[in-house]
Amino acid sequence: MSTTNLAVIPGDGIGPEVTAEALKVLEVAANIASGSASAGPVKFEQTRYDLGAERYLATGEVLPESVLAEIKEQDAILLGAVGGKPNDPNLPPGILERGLLLKLRFELDHYVNLRPSRLFPGATSPLSPAVLDKGEIDFVVVREGTEGLYTGNGGAMRVGTPHEVATETSVNTAYGVERVVRDAFARSQARPRKKLTLVHKTNVLVNAGSLWWRITQQVAEEFPDVTVDYLHIDAVMIFLATDPARFDVIVTDNIFGDIITDLAAAITGGIGLAASGNINSSREFPSMFEPVHGSAPDIAGQQKADPTAAILSGSLLLEHLGRPEAAAAIDAAVLADLSERGPEPRTTSEVGDAIAARVVG
Amino acid sequence: MSTTNLAVIPGDGIGPEVTAEALKVLEVAANIASGSASAGPVKFEQTRYDLGAERYLATGEVLPESVLAEIKEQDAILLGAVGGKPNDPNLPPGILERGLLLKLRFELDHYVNLRPSRLFPGATSPLSPAVLDKGEIDFVVVREGTEGLYTGNGGAMRVGTPHEVATETSVNTAYGVERVVRDAFARSQARPRKKLTLVHKTNVLVNAGSLWWRITQQVAEEFPDVTVDYLHIDAVMIFLATDPARFDVIVTDNIFGDIITDLAAAITGGIGLAASGNINSSREFPSMFEPVHGSAPDIAGQQKADPTAAILSGSLLLEHLGRPEAAAAIDAAVLADLSERGPEPRTTSEVGDAIAARVVG
Ligand SMILES: CC(C)[C@H](C(=O)O)[C@@H](O)C(=O)O
Ligand SMILES: CC(C)[C@H](C(=O)O)[C@@H](O)C(=O)O
Repeated sequence: MSTTNLAVIPGDGIGPEVTAEALKVLEVAANIASGSASAGPVKFEQTRYDLGAERYLATGEVLPESVLAEIKEQDAILLGAVGGKPNDPNLPPGILERGLLLKLRFELDHYVNLRPSRLFPGATSPLSPAVLDKGEIDFVVVREGTEGLYTGNGGAMRVGTPHEVATETSVNTAYGVERVVRDAFARSQARPRKKLTLVHKTNVLVNAGSLWWRITQQVAEEFPDVTVDYLHIDAVMIFLATDPARFDVIVTDNIFGDIITDLAAAITGGIGLAASGNINSSREFPSMFEPVHGSAPDIAGQQKADPTAAILSGSLLLEHLGRPEAAAAIDAAVLADLSERGPEPRTTSEVGDAIAARVVG
Repeated sequence: MSTTNLAVIPGDGIGPEVTAEALKVLEVAANIASGSASAGPVKFEQTRYDLGAERYLATGEVLPESVLAEIKEQDAILLGAVGGKPNDPNLPPGILERGLLLKLRFELDHYVNLRPSRLFPGATSPLSPAVLDKGEIDFVVVREGTEGLYTGNGGAMRVGTPHEVATETSVNTAYGVERVVRDAFARSQARPRKKLTLVHKTNVLVNAGSLWWRITQQVAEEFPDVTVDYLHIDAVMIFLATDPARFDVIVTDNIFGDIITDLAAAITGGIGLAASGNINSSREFPSMFEPVHGSAPDIAGQQKADPTAAILSGSLLLEHLGRPEAAAAIDAAVLADLSERGPEPRTTSEVGDAIAARVVG
């Protein structure tokens, strides 16, 4: 039996509640992995880290260096959600995002931000039947996670005066673009449709756009069986609303990926179902798995949150650890649960229990 | 009778066809303006400018200085669409966008890029009845048009090597943000709901985000009757898909506005109906009106294009010229036409004729 050292960051708001359910399901799935052909069962050795708004407000600490150093030694990370009350004057925008969430993505070199979008049967899409009838929605967004507008490369001068100038610089490197594009090609190749759509805004962002475009053409030569196309970010908006079934794998930069994946989550039944992985594909550092949703402080501690996105993030974690059967067992359990959800509300832990009970090897 | 000098740039692809219909309807509406309370009829003195992909491919010219100087002297500009065949090796991405479209927006200081989104009865939305039942979709996006990532402030080094670095810088000034935010507040105040939503990504783009946020708070004091809220760009994606009726006026930067308005067009019946104004609210330079759609070279010259977006851009033009009654007459004619559109396809000019015939003072 192999031991996986798992860092657990429950975080703020509904984070601890959904994380508890994700761990519950993960334990069950890890056990049934014993029957799997590819590998034995997984034993998780958990270490909890209290990080987030609460810790910051109490101590002023966001991510102490010693904690970061410990986390770097773990095999994988499960994160619930971090974030305080909206517009808390003691918590300026960016403190937790840049000091914790993005800091982890950057320090652990999470260059593949993976976000699958699938309309599970039983989930409610805001799209019309005419759009949904065009085909099954089942695509993956591979969002670059360590470059672009997220590098903190901005500044301001004459702040507070009528002559203030504030800049934000998107930084893109051949090294950074190539590795995420190659990862996206590999993921496309492993899927039945083998289709990759590069998304950018090459007609305006000519420098970064040209880099993304040229690298995609180059890497495409290594994957002759993958069909490649290109769309501007604005055109993607139209297709996600009118024909999302056309997408298979999308590869794009950090900010466009952020925008696309929230729309993708919305059209596939909402952010309550959207999982994500912050992946270091070269495996130098632990990868981190988290639901796309935030900490929702307004419903925290009331057992009202839907833990499904956190549970599905656990499935991505198992997949990343080389346990595809265990991951598939979670997906199947979620699918079964979703297709039988009735109108009566369930508590967070009832949903977790129901899904855990459906996990079979 | 006042004379308006109108620069007409039909452009490429379907541009000339839709422009012809917009002019047809504009002439009729301008005449009926005679009965208007606010002003007499408008006489348009048209000057055509051949600009776009065709001219560039034939002559290498994009926007000669002398042409730009002439256009600057006009009262307003009507543009069809510019753009050549996709992936034409003789037409690298950005040449026409940055050399013509954006050049006009920047040279004529079009700091208000105005894009109304309204689901007209009869238009087909890709959203489900459950979403549409939440309320009427009728909002306006005020997109900043002269700053942000559109300033061409980028560069690249070691191009073509594994060490290439490409940057794009979003430039935001207090001057630029304040004038567009003030314009958006004034537009909110003139609407029944008086609601303004600032959209940005303050948690990541902390420098630019802070500038937009502070200026919005400041200007809000001059408009105490306008309700202000704030959403991150990713959250806007979710609301546009699940509850678009919540929006009244949105103010945002250049790239977020580009992205939002295409999604807004999609959910209100498609880009074939989306009009826009590139407005210099201080009236130092002529404003420019154009449909949001592109040149669609694949259907050019076949009388297949829907001229409605171009016609509605004419309505925005009349509004800008201080002829709200004439503008309203066009909107009403479009509304009537839309609600009686049958399944049989009509030619571009049949649609234009039908709408023109419905314009009454
Ligand atoms: C919270 C924020 C920094 C983050 C991002 O922009 O990446 C979030 O929106 C996400 O998508 O994970
Ligand atoms: C063609 C392109 C430069 C333009 C933009 O990005 O502004 C277009 O998408 C638009 O929205 O008018």
